[in-house]
Amino acid sequence: MTSFHLNILKFSNIIKINSTSSSRLLQLRNMSLLKNKSGPIKVADKVAHFKQDVWSIFTPLAAQLNAVNLGQGFMNFPPPDFVRKAAIDAINTDDCNQYAHPKGRLRLLKALAKSYSPLFNRTLDPETEVVVTAGANEALYATFAGFLDDGDEVILMEPFFDQYIANITMNGGVPVYVPLRPHGDTSKIMSSSDWKLDINELRSKITPRTKIIVLNTPHNPVGKVFSKEELLEIGQLVQEFNLLLISDEVYDRLYFKPDVHERIANLPGLWEHTITIGSGGKTFGTTGWRVGWSIGPKDLIKTVLSAQTRIVFCVNSPLQEAIAISLEEAEAHNYYENHITSYEQRREKMCKALSDAGLPHTIPQGAYYVLANIKGIKIPEDYEYPEALNSRPRDFKVCYWLAKEIGVVAIPPSEFYCEENRHLGEDYARFAFCKTDETLEAAAKALLKLKKYINE
Amino acid sequence: MTSFHLNILKFSNIIKINSTSSSRLLQLRNMSLLKNKSGPIKVADKVAHFKQDVWSIFTPLAAQLNAVNLGQGFMNFPPPDFVRKAAIDAINTDDCNQYAHPKGRLRLLKALAKSYSPLFNRTLDPETEVVVTAGANEALYATFAGFLDDGDEVILMEPFFDQYIANITMNGGVPVYVPLRPHGDTSKIMSSSDWKLDINELRSKITPRTKIIVLNTPHNPVGKVFSKEELLEIGQLVQEFNLLLISDEVYDRLYFKPDVHERIANLPGLWEHTITIGSGGKTFGTTGWRVGWSIGPKDLIKTVLSAQTRIVFCVNSPLQEAIAISLEEAEAHNYYENHITSYEQRREKMCKALSDAGLPHTIPQGAYYVLANIKGIKIPEDYEYPEALNSRPRDFKVCYWLAKEIGVVAIPPSEFYCEENRHLGEDYARFAFCKTDETLEAAAKALLKLKKYINE
Repeated sequence: MTSFHLNILKFSNIIKINSTSSSRLLQLRNMSLLKNKSGPIKVADKVAHFKQDVWSIFTPLAAQLNAVNLGQGFMNFPPPDFVRKAAIDAINTDDCNQYAHPKGRLRLLKALAKSYSPLFNRTLDPETEVVVTAGANEALYATFAGFLDDGDEVILMEPFFDQYIANITMNGGVPVYVPLRPHGDTSKIMSSSDWKLDINELRSKITPRTKIIVLNTPHNPVGKVFSKEELLEIGQLVQEFNLLLISDEVYDRLYFKPDVHERIANLPGLWEHTITIGSGGKTFGTTGWRVGWSIGPKDLIKTVLSAQTRIVFCVNSPLQEAIAISLEEAEAHNYYENHITSYEQRREKMCKALSDAGLPHTIPQGAYYVLANIKGIKIPEDYEYPEALNSRPRDFKVCYWLAKEIGVVAIPPSEFYCEENRHLGEDYARFAFCKTDETLEAAAKALLKLKKYINE
Repeated sequence: MTSFHLNILKFSNIIKINSTSSSRLLQLRNMSLLKNKSGPIKVADKVAHFKQDVWSIFTPLAAQLNAVNLGQGFMNFPPPDFVRKAAIDAINTDDCNQYAHPKGRLRLLKALAKSYSPLFNRTLDPETEVVVTAGANEALYATFAGFLDDGDEVILMEPFFDQYIANITMNGGVPVYVPLRPHGDTSKIMSSSDWKLDINELRSKITPRTKIIVLNTPHNPVGKVFSKEELLEIGQLVQEFNLLLISDEVYDRLYFKPDVHERIANLPGLWEHTITIGSGGKTFGTTGWRVGWSIGPKDLIKTVLSAQTRIVFCVNSPLQEAIAISLEEAEAHNYYENHITSYEQRREKMCKALSDAGLPHTIPQGAYYVLANIKGIKIPEDYEYPEALNSRPRDFKVCYWLAKEIGVVAIPPSEFYCEENRHLGEDYARFAFCKTDETLEAAAKALLKLKKYINE
């Protein structure tokens, strides 16, 4: 059946709602039913086209090859003791093992309001301006579910976090892309601040159907921390076209001097337009706890809550309580400052390892990834790749080769671009440095083997 | 804008995909945009109509009135020690604090396969026939997301778990209803086996767009455990029309002698059609852990996994590991048998309390709810209700009065019927008995106050 026929079928459904019909359309519908009378149960169109995600290719590869895994962004070290203890205390509190309110446990809502009020320069109402979500991913999903009607457009900046796409399309939205582009000599070491958005290019993507712009700062995988000036330009378009802005700030506690993480919701007139998303897993080194949150004005948060109540009903209670306790105690442990310092050291180790191996890279201002430029790596021409990689861009092949021959797993970022712009990503590989010193040192040692494959 | 115009707008989007256009349609689109240029950001049509759910009315009411809460089905007692200890052990295991694989932690997948293989009379493949979900609710949501195209119909039996509706409509589906009807004298004590499905009525609801039938056994709120004969009848329709069957069996460990929980997936030819949903929270008394699962044939589970990977990415790791350990150890603790015995005692207490108060009721064969017939309760005619309840059916009013004047919170089950059949629920109230002896005794004592409001 052609896509034209599928669309006609959709149209027949519309007509049915309006109590009219057409024999040709009914005939087409009946054809499709007969087809359904046997054989496999049909998968929804919105899901059927999903291909294997990059994580389920490269995470198992790391295990299989026993390679140093700088792929997926999880910590291979334990959370701080006070965070772990908070979880045990929660498990030992009876009511923490039962349903939470869909909006979140009151203690966590209050802890979030207290912790974030100074950061948003306003007194947040814990009961109406904060909602706890099943990880930041579900916060995004619920927001798209709550605001997107079929055909609404969502503008993403490339490279983007790959989950965004399915989160949008499953909810009827249409992703629209605008790339961040590196300015300067990419064969040299750069700063993530050299990756810039062309604000006129962004403006040119706005159509009558544009509903949402997604911002991600600090940015994965570039490491860019958007400056106030850049945010003002984006914010101006948001106001001019009365858009919703989703600000994915899951790395908001992780930016490096002299840069400072600015919140777009704090700019004049933007609070009313912005849902800011945060993550307990990124903040406290517990990516497996699946506790995230959204902060914004009452009317927007109400809609996120409406959607999420039906998607997951509520978020796991004990780890909500644990994040609440962790937020309450973080300052007393000087946690945020120590956290940044430890990651500054990891960033330095990572960047030095890449330099020593002869790989130019982008020094990140925030988050825990480094994009290395892999253009100079010369892989023997007769090298054989698994068949599944034949149709993938060069970065997939280089990352496979890196894992197999050099022993270090990185993620190919072309996955974070739309088909049309995929070539913009294929000269890079993303290395995650949220890893122990031993792991980073093992990676550094292994990467030295690269030198003979790079032409100076 | 009329619904006709909205549909034309949808159509214009289809046309756009096909690279043709019409000036009238464009004009309509532009009109809708001007409207959007100021004012609040529009909520998605699929979410905008949601009204306040029954839980967020009655759960806070219990707290506010300090009434005995037999409303929401959560345990007000701790999980067993071995279950709680399993969670603490998991928190103390470093990798349990990081991302799990979207399909679930291997230990839990293996524990589920081992525990459920004998129950499904087959050797389950942990890697392909089981998927861990963020609670049973998200299992349902992901299944609807994975299989429903716009306009696909899903048949539900009334009374239904209220989340089903939004789970279906948010994914473009259309709920279709068929009631379970009590047979016999409803003014006397009955068995949940007296609530019957009319199989011809079910058959009459099947249309060319029917995609899914949802079964719930043991049933919430009726307590019905469907007999093998009843399941065979439903199964025959599933096969005849090549439908998907979602069997919501979250109370599969909780049925009372002499009844036995039968699994529809075990009937001849039905494995290939069935996704069976289970719940760690219901099984181990930890409703706040949000760990559920789906079991079924590889092709169906693959689709649930595709959808859920994008909805929540993965389920919280530590509590997955805790459920895995709990499943591994349950038999050694004689857990399932003790669990049933303790709930048999609770059921007896609950039913006696209702009898003593003069309330006819349905003795449940499974799960932990009793439907009481509240038709005989005479509330003073000049009694005043909150304005929000004025437009609600009688059971909402009686449940409000029960909470306020008698001091016991129950749930009005008319919420579990479609608008058209709502009257079928308004003579009942649902009492949850997953509560401590003290709570059940306090409820029994309070309910005695009812006698003077009931005409014998």
